[in-house]
Amino acid sequence: MSKLSIDILTLFPEMFSGVLNSSILGKAQEKQLVQFHLINFRDYATNKHKQVDDYPYGGGGGMVLKPEPLFYAVEDRLSQLPTHVKPRILLMSPQGERFTQQKAEELARENHLIFICGHYEGYDERIRQYLVTDEISIGDYVLTGGELAAMVIIDSVVRLREGVLGNQSSPKDDSFSTGLLEYPQYTRPADFRGMKVPEVLLSGHHERIKEWRRRQALYRTWQRRPDLLKNYPLSDQEKAWIAEWEKQKEKQKKDVKRQ
Amino acid sequence: MSKLSIDILTLFPEMFSGVLNSSILGKAQEKQLVQFHLINFRDYATNKHKQVDDYPYGGGGGMVLKPEPLFYAVEDRLSQLPTHVKPRILLMSPQGERFTQQKAEELARENHLIFICGHYEGYDERIRQYLVTDEISIGDYVLTGGELAAMVIIDSVVRLREGVLGNQSSPKDDSFSTGLLEYPQYTRPADFRGMKVPEVLLSGHHERIKEWRRRQALYRTWQRRPDLLKNYPLSDQEKAWIAEWEKQKEKQKKDVKRQ
Repeated sequence: MSKLSIDILTLFPEMFSGVLNSSILGKAQEKQLVQFHLINFRDYATNKHKQVDDYPYGGGGGMVLKPEPLFYAVEDRLSQLPTHVKPRILLMSPQGERFTQQKAEELARENHLIFICGHYEGYDERIRQYLVTDEISIGDYVLTGGELAAMVIIDSVVRLREGVLGNQSSPKDDSFSTGLLEYPQYTRPADFRGMKVPEVLLSGHHERIKEWRRRQALYRTWQRRPDLLKNYPLSDQEKAWIAEWEKQKEKQKKDVKRQ
Repeated sequence: MSKLSIDILTLFPEMFSGVLNSSILGKAQEKQLVQFHLINFRDYATNKHKQVDDYPYGGGGGMVLKPEPLFYAVEDRLSQLPTHVKPRILLMSPQGERFTQQKAEELARENHLIFICGHYEGYDERIRQYLVTDEISIGDYVLTGGELAAMVIIDSVVRLREGVLGNQSSPKDDSFSTGLLEYPQYTRPADFRGMKVPEVLLSGHHERIKEWRRRQALYRTWQRRPDLLKNYPLSDQEKAWIAEWEKQKEKQKKDVKRQ
């Protein structure tokens, strides 16, 4: 099991300690499976005021991160690494490629990742064009900075590395790994204030339980995320189930109209 | 400007301090615009081992969060609030509705939010069905827990509240708020190691700069996120630009084939 090195370039290094040192990420560090290196790129600013941003050319509101501090910070870091190490350099940006579980799996095969986190400001376009290897967005919403996006990606990537999760849970059963959402889960008590666990789960019939779960996972995906079914190879039985649900839905629509 | 109350139910309250107390969220607390309340729902476990999870009915790997600690923690919190306050109760889950900027705007109009963060385990289905008002996913990837998802949503919601961002930046110009990705930004120096700022931005012609930016924002969206254009009302000129790019793309494809 090799160690993953992660460098984080940010103006707010103090945001990271709670997340990187707790729970799974904290344990992964203790087990020497991952190593974090926080770099405040303000230390690489070139003028005496340690200025990292400036007004945009062409006018308009907001500030733009200057190219020099980020180029110099990345280059200084690269100069400390053995020449055969070619880190991926990831820019956190709402304009980037959308992060997915496939991308997490791809990044989990790397040995060195460098994250660049801007904060409210935009990035000078030359940073995108000439410095980074990947520009990534964690979703269609706006954050005050790239720090939380970096933490999200780090968490999702590190948990996939060998030895990190241990036996308590396997990444193979995750939502998105199977292509469907997960089926409903229940635990004790079997009756909580009259809210009961479905009888099939208490039956001990392994085959019936397995089929109930497959059907429930498919139903939930069909209801909530039909887009995921486009790339999912449906069996004949699964196609029949969906046809049945579509029919029920049509019938309900008609019943509503009649009322 | 009213205060937003946010309660966070988690087994890892120590993960939050770095994020909630830095930068914009820290300042929003100082300005009394938001108030956070961290609740470890292990304190509401009913047996002497303070157990919050248990094996799933029907077998299978992984653990499932029991209903009682979460029901009791939420009910205890509600009992402390004036009866007219009806908080939204948000479950962080990969199976939830996908979080978007529209949802952030919707939640930013609330006065009280309660976040429930599970950790590796699944949730007993009764929590979904009978306790929460919204089940939200921040994207199609798997995290070790709901804590980072809650931080992402909190950050994107709090920055939209009146008075939080001040004048330095306006949520109106964000990516996704206009329906397009942002145009490229540049700042000084105009020439960095031969990498130059586009001349139009140095020209001082405001009309030409405005048009260049509109065209660039559209081009970037067309290239990277064509899905966003489905809901965007294109002007005639914008339609003409896209037709031109489509034509160039076709021509490039043919040229590649010929080689």
